[in-house]
Amino acid sequence: MESLQRMGEKAKAAARILAAAQSAAKDRALTAVAAALRASVPAILAANAEDLAAGRAAGLTEGLLDRLALSQSRIEGMARGVEEVSLLADPVGRIDQGSTRPNGLQIYRVRVPLGVIGIIYEARPNVTADAAALCLKAGNAVILRGGKEAIRSNQAIAGCMRAAVEEAGLPADCIQLVEDTSRESANALMRLNGYLDVLIPRGGAGLIKAVVEQATVPVIETGTGNCHVYVDETADLDMAADIVYNAKTSRPSVCNAMETLLVHKDAAAAFLPAVGARLAEKQVELRGCPRTKEILGESVKPASEADYAAEFLDYILAVRVVDGLDQALEHIARYSSGHSECIVTGSYPNARRFEREVDAAAVYVNASTRFTDGGMFGYGAEIGISTQKLHARGPMGVEQLTSMKYVVRGDGQIRE
Amino acid sequence: MESLQRMGEKAKAAARILAAAQSAAKDRALTAVAAALRASVPAILAANAEDLAAGRAAGLTEGLLDRLALSQSRIEGMARGVEEVSLLADPVGRIDQGSTRPNGLQIYRVRVPLGVIGIIYEARPNVTADAAALCLKAGNAVILRGGKEAIRSNQAIAGCMRAAVEEAGLPADCIQLVEDTSRESANALMRLNGYLDVLIPRGGAGLIKAVVEQATVPVIETGTGNCHVYVDETADLDMAADIVYNAKTSRPSVCNAMETLLVHKDAAAAFLPAVGARLAEKQVELRGCPRTKEILGESVKPASEADYAAEFLDYILAVRVVDGLDQALEHIARYSSGHSECIVTGSYPNARRFEREVDAAAVYVNASTRFTDGGMFGYGAEIGISTQKLHARGPMGVEQLTSMKYVVRGDGQIRE
Repeated sequence: MESLQRMGEKAKAAARILAAAQSAAKDRALTAVAAALRASVPAILAANAEDLAAGRAAGLTEGLLDRLALSQSRIEGMARGVEEVSLLADPVGRIDQGSTRPNGLQIYRVRVPLGVIGIIYEARPNVTADAAALCLKAGNAVILRGGKEAIRSNQAIAGCMRAAVEEAGLPADCIQLVEDTSRESANALMRLNGYLDVLIPRGGAGLIKAVVEQATVPVIETGTGNCHVYVDETADLDMAADIVYNAKTSRPSVCNAMETLLVHKDAAAAFLPAVGARLAEKQVELRGCPRTKEILGESVKPASEADYAAEFLDYILAVRVVDGLDQALEHIARYSSGHSECIVTGSYPNARRFEREVDAAAVYVNASTRFTDGGMFGYGAEIGISTQKLHARGPMGVEQLTSMKYVVRGDGQIRE
Repeated sequence: MESLQRMGEKAKAAARILAAAQSAAKDRALTAVAAALRASVPAILAANAEDLAAGRAAGLTEGLLDRLALSQSRIEGMARGVEEVSLLADPVGRIDQGSTRPNGLQIYRVRVPLGVIGIIYEARPNVTADAAALCLKAGNAVILRGGKEAIRSNQAIAGCMRAAVEEAGLPADCIQLVEDTSRESANALMRLNGYLDVLIPRGGAGLIKAVVEQATVPVIETGTGNCHVYVDETADLDMAADIVYNAKTSRPSVCNAMETLLVHKDAAAAFLPAVGARLAEKQVELRGCPRTKEILGESVKPASEADYAAEFLDYILAVRVVDGLDQALEHIARYSSGHSECIVTGSYPNARRFEREVDAAAVYVNASTRFTDGGMFGYGAEIGISTQKLHARGPMGVEQLTSMKYVVRGDGQIRE
């Protein structure tokens, strides 16, 4: 097995070539990758069947097995995803700022690839294709380190992508898969300074926490969403119920789903029974503050501190009645993971204050938090939702996988 | 002594208020800080005298004592620096992108403060004022952790800044100084996750390396400059000599000074003796490859691998004769710290290829690397030169001390 350092060297060499490649060359490679994925369906499914058999033997849960499982249509979805990435605008080379200084120096800022990106992920083998395509489009070499449950599937997918990239005239090492799925290889990747320009963990809160704590390379945190909807005393309560129902139940397992409902005390008596009935259609379990329980009755479980802090990712909702916008803002400042926060209001000053004071990647007025997504924002595919404030915040599309450099053109200028 | 966690809580509370403050309020606070620094000259100098006495007793080098020493004019310089920051445009609130989606959602991206910034630095007490002013201008609370040699000076400076900020109507805790200068306090600051949005080390390579390796909060690396000038076979050799002389000798101790000269083999016989004579005026020690020694004689020391990798920050220059642009690009890709790289050339294709293929914060054609600086680039004061590719690259002014958020305005939109 190759050492990670050797993989880092190969990635850097590939990245140098890729950085200078024109958009058309990268798009040809992506088109070839999509075709190769379609041509490799039998091989990929065979590898996936081995992973599934091993997973069943190892006693994986049904949920994990489902995430691991591929099918002809899932592979077709991967191929179409790669094609969609090829159709995006290339961010590399974009000049977004420039000036001529008083001494005649011309200075401009041009988008360049980040270089080498590491991705650590878990059971879903489709991440292998999605992440590699986005990295390649933005001119980056990628080192992929997926979970051990999916290793055979990932090998089949990465192998066919590498061959296609090489046939299209770019280095196969633009895409490398770490075949060692031990904990040691993950730890080594987190400390591959000098080779990795950024490491992006994709997976559950445990994986992200481990990477943040152990990595010495720069990391972008993605995907933890403790999202709130605050319904104020001026809200259109039908609109509020639609938004809450959508934000909680349309897909509870994703990071932009809502986890806590805050209701103004003057709206609570009318709103809570109405929204409670809607949520009951989906058997959503409510965990409420004492005032919520007064209105909705003893069937509502009491909400603990831990419930307000939790990302349930399930049909569970914490509910709190608040005295007003100040208390709602305090609650959000305290518990929010900085992902997506919403106010439902008819009040212009309340909307304006919420927009300004809430510190999150996306702040909504009168719309479902479920829109926080690269596609919905018009950026196309994304590699995740960043919940940190450095470099990228919110949906990370191809632009967020680039950096910039200054080009300075002179005629012999020296500094006094 | 207060725990760092308590300081983090206070910083977060101050940051929430500061984030909502209007530009005028922040500028008033900065003007008040400048006035307070001027009014506190005697107190700051008295504290500085104690630091200097303790430093002498502890056997600090003359160089360190010089960096530590304040004077009326140095404090006046700090005050003027703070005033200059107050005059910069406020990046917060700038809207740099927006659209209306097909479903009627209006989405725009607005600049917001990062939140809480940590700065770890060494002996220079002026960093206390410079860094705090830049952070405040960009709407961030700052936690400053300076070196133990300067603790009394830093206390005096931070104390007078805090009082001025509070009198101007903003929370004193916008600026906090860690009074414990033990190694433990530095380590704790590096792991203050949940409170620090970014940590910026300002100082020597050892400090920066320690922070990168130990920090679990996001870090921006600044200030390591192994900068090259490549003189190709088409260069105007007088211009090249001026640039090399300026880049090496105008201020050798700073990160944008050049450390290695690369010369095309066809230019070497004419150029090296000419530039060697110029550099001899400043007693620059040359460390050359065998071909350099052939031309300049045995007085030139042989260059080792370590010399090519070194950031000398001194009157020392590594010199290598290369076969052409390919070899120059290879050398730079291998040894560059990604700060500032220059080609001196008369060739359009060479200029274009160098601009495109060199991966550094600033890539120069026919100008001295010494221009990589916030002031020279027209951004005003800077907190450092970032040599990483994430978030900020090159001179970090107030804009680089901000993040962004999405504001999404709807009329009840929900996701299908």
